[in-house]
Amino acid sequence: MSSLILHEYAQSGNCYKIRLTAAYLGLPVERREYDILAGETRTADFLGSVNANGRIPVLQIGDQFLPESGAACLYLADGSALIPADRFERADMMRWMFWEQYNHEPNVATLRFWRLFIGEGGLNETQRAQLPLKQAAGEAALALMDEHLRARDYFVGDRLTLADIALYAYTHVANEGGFDLSRYPSVQRWTAQVATTPGHVTLDA
Amino acid sequence: MSSLILHEYAQSGNCYKIRLTAAYLGLPVERREYDILAGETRTADFLGSVNANGRIPVLQIGDQFLPESGAACLYLADGSALIPADRFERADMMRWMFWEQYNHEPNVATLRFWRLFIGEGGLNETQRAQLPLKQAAGEAALALMDEHLRARDYFVGDRLTLADIALYAYTHVANEGGFDLSRYPSVQRWTAQVATTPGHVTLDA
Repeated sequence: MSSLILHEYAQSGNCYKIRLTAAYLGLPVERREYDILAGETRTADFLGSVNANGRIPVLQIGDQFLPESGAACLYLADGSALIPADRFERADMMRWMFWEQYNHEPNVATLRFWRLFIGEGGLNETQRAQLPLKQAAGEAALALMDEHLRARDYFVGDRLTLADIALYAYTHVANEGGFDLSRYPSVQRWTAQVATTPGHVTLDA
Repeated sequence: MSSLILHEYAQSGNCYKIRLTAAYLGLPVERREYDILAGETRTADFLGSVNANGRIPVLQIGDQFLPESGAACLYLADGSALIPADRFERADMMRWMFWEQYNHEPNVATLRFWRLFIGEGGLNETQRAQLPLKQAAGEAALALMDEHLRARDYFVGDRLTLADIALYAYTHVANEGGFDLSRYPSVQRWTAQVATTPGHVTLDA
């Protein structure tokens, strides 16, 4: 594989997903940090050469740039045991990865960003208006995960896949967004189990 | 392949993506319609047997249920020419599919749903507060697509992939959400070209 460079903001769970995938696979990744609060991903240089969408993470593979955390994890894990061999299970893993980006991340991750990094006092009117909605949608996402995990160790099949990595990243720090994980015991059991995966690294590593 | 049943709301672009993928592949799909405005995807029966997340589309494959449009398209297209053989191109296709669900659909599709199906008069205060933000984010998404397509016929490589299908579904009806597609000439050229794909079916077919 060509050399790998992760353009990232280390505290972002989306960036952490890629580091976690690389760690489980034993792949070395060079890291380049951008201060998103200071607009470092909106410069002409970043927009022109790294990601026209102005966001991290972006995985650089040689001289090719790959935005979107899920796509980067899929690239790294291609052909590995982190992706199920069975056609339905593989699609079901994708289902959870899409679900995470649509139903979980915009609520659980956004509230963490707003509360931990910006602070409620710094939110604008539109953001403040969305707080109750995002709190309720985040709780619903965690409840759905808890129900799914009640009789399962992992999201798909009987082993860890990219679905677990995608969901672990923001779930295990959901308390930083104002969610009480003790209300979701199956989720807590699952996060503890994911953390025992060989090669595991923490968000702040 | 087992028999395929699409649980859907026909006017949803997310459901259309699956029908389009099946049509290009020549796969027959039985369709079951739910009135989402009447809450037919939030009944105990639907939540218990079709999708605990209370949303369509769900692709039923034999007795297995697969929510999330992107996952369903990937299941259907597995091993076909709609998915690039090259590792980077395959991940790059996924990048656009994730980008569509995160940056495009919540803006372009949501405004179409709010304006065409609910009507601006029926929106609640939180929804009304988000209108300018979603309009701007939708325009930014269309502008990014237009820039990407300026010197390309398709989103990834030189042929149609699931990335085009995922992005076509809501883009070609973006005017119904209050977006003026004549401002995006490369997008218009691309939508016209996608519509010439062998097997193409329209949203209202």
